[in-house]
Amino acid sequence: MLTERERFNMAEDRIILDHGAGGAASHRLIKDYIFSKLRNPLLEPLDDSAVLEMGDGIKIAMTTDSYVIDPIFFPGGDIGSLAVYGTVNDLSMQGATPLFLSLAFIIEEGLPLKDLKRIMDSISKAAKEANVDIVTGDTKVVHRGQADKIYINTAGIGKVPKGIEISSHLARPGDLVIINGDIADHGMAVLFSREELDPDIPISSDSAPLNGLVSEILKISDKIHVLKDPTRGGLGSALNEIAQNSNVSIFIYEDRIPIKEEVKAACELLGFDPLYIANEGKCIVIVEEEDADRVLEAMKRHPLGKDSRIIGEIREEYAGKVYMKTKVGGTRIISMLEGEQAPRIC
Amino acid sequence: MLTERERFNMAEDRIILDHGAGGAASHRLIKDYIFSKLRNPLLEPLDDSAVLEMGDGIKIAMTTDSYVIDPIFFPGGDIGSLAVYGTVNDLSMQGATPLFLSLAFIIEEGLPLKDLKRIMDSISKAAKEANVDIVTGDTKVVHRGQADKIYINTAGIGKVPKGIEISSHLARPGDLVIINGDIADHGMAVLFSREELDPDIPISSDSAPLNGLVSEILKISDKIHVLKDPTRGGLGSALNEIAQNSNVSIFIYEDRIPIKEEVKAACELLGFDPLYIANEGKCIVIVEEEDADRVLEAMKRHPLGKDSRIIGEIREEYAGKVYMKTKVGGTRIISMLEGEQAPRIC
Repeated sequence: MLTERERFNMAEDRIILDHGAGGAASHRLIKDYIFSKLRNPLLEPLDDSAVLEMGDGIKIAMTTDSYVIDPIFFPGGDIGSLAVYGTVNDLSMQGATPLFLSLAFIIEEGLPLKDLKRIMDSISKAAKEANVDIVTGDTKVVHRGQADKIYINTAGIGKVPKGIEISSHLARPGDLVIINGDIADHGMAVLFSREELDPDIPISSDSAPLNGLVSEILKISDKIHVLKDPTRGGLGSALNEIAQNSNVSIFIYEDRIPIKEEVKAACELLGFDPLYIANEGKCIVIVEEEDADRVLEAMKRHPLGKDSRIIGEIREEYAGKVYMKTKVGGTRIISMLEGEQAPRIC
Repeated sequence: MLTERERFNMAEDRIILDHGAGGAASHRLIKDYIFSKLRNPLLEPLDDSAVLEMGDGIKIAMTTDSYVIDPIFFPGGDIGSLAVYGTVNDLSMQGATPLFLSLAFIIEEGLPLKDLKRIMDSISKAAKEANVDIVTGDTKVVHRGQADKIYINTAGIGKVPKGIEISSHLARPGDLVIINGDIADHGMAVLFSREELDPDIPISSDSAPLNGLVSEILKISDKIHVLKDPTRGGLGSALNEIAQNSNVSIFIYEDRIPIKEEVKAACELLGFDPLYIANEGKCIVIVEEEDADRVLEAMKRHPLGKDSRIIGEIREEYAGKVYMKTKVGGTRIISMLEGEQAPRIC
């Protein structure tokens, strides 16, 4: 009889890295192998969080993410703060107030205890900053070579305020698209750090908790339809998800998309398109035109939104597609990538 | 500058396998490195689930577990059903009604798609059987050799019925200790399957969802103080946790502890003590003596409780310790193991 490892080595159809990259291959895998087995109305929207009725009119949001980032420490953050902020942000993107997180470690035998200590210090600080409590946890240790240093899963629960209904399915023609600042910082910081490229290029992850910013804009407008953090797959993939889920097209303007000069240069150096590079402190806000200026001003007043800009609009024609007006005046389709440009970015 | 891997290889104080085994080493790690950084009143009880107030008198339980079991398919179950039942059981042990699960995969590049399909079929079936919905998920893929086939994290949410207060801190002197059947099946089934030992010894995991059984006994008694599933670390470690958390002693009788002849023989063959072998469908019920017979009868009527037995009682003296009256008439201390007898059992 074959061992599991022998069967593993002999299989024809296999999981490939692209299946975990948040692009088209991921979406197919999830649709064909996972979603098809679990079909239920709560999972149906496939948003960043599920919204659940707990009785007596109480609605909560729930989300989960595993973090397998390499390296575990990078400029602007580490796997610990990332695991807290990432899950806080997924809850915020549903308009929920993040409250409680679970924390589960899979640790490779041999991890220096001082690395674990540094990660826990970071988790503790991040939870305080994001105003969430870590309420339950789990620790597993696997043999050397059965993980890479440490993987962290955080699941989160938030409370959805009464009257809030925000989802990637709710963009409407005429709405405007806002982003709260420069794109591609996180992915490029991690890549430069992993590959030990020029340490003099000062690129730092944007990893941050977005619940404060979101709470400010929800206070001043009830016409916000979509919130989405463009993480794995970047701005390009996130906009494609919204266009498909809402059955609209999205039209963005290249010259309005904020990006740091050094990040742009780094992307060019490595041949990457910044539209597909992961962000961890960015939020796409899609809002009715009527409220767009008010929302933009409120975002600019927040420390995480100083560089906010309107970058495009929602249209009706060519539903499901994303278009970009380039600087030279042409228009190109921004499609969903098949895989990702670099794995293990979060 | 050293790479992360170089630092990893040079460290003096490191994570060892025992840190993940659910015994004394695990408890020290959690206390010294994790809990100390996260101290908050919700985490304080360190039960299988946290109990959270969501407003308007609604209480929910939340729990998380990562499953890293090897092999991923074993007699009586697989990593998929285990991940569903394990989290359902952790919620049930708080007296909560399990409702919603998250599902997060970390997959090793190269996993046969048919293995993923088989696992998803099992998850789907298990969720139906346990009457829970999987509402949100995540899939990460890591390079070959950075995981072992597949790891699964499930977090879960349940609703705690009004008036229910069950915790490992609530055992009281005079209470009786019941278990719903044979111990050590899961751990021995996994070990025999992993080591490819004699396949003619018919040992099968007891992996099962306990929410049905728990709901039956909560219906007929409001004098149940503790529910606990003796998973990693087995019955011995679980009883030690209860004794310490409740500041009582627990006295059990060897001749009342149900165990299958073949499992006992297998333990003897490998030199293992069945008291420390993991279970995945067992529940320790600690109840006031007055209600013990009614609860026992209700358990026996349930398919997962046919072999239920009273195995001991709670005492006041020697608080924090667990004692066993042996078959030959002596008394021995059942201490908490330092590590585990075998890693990656769940």
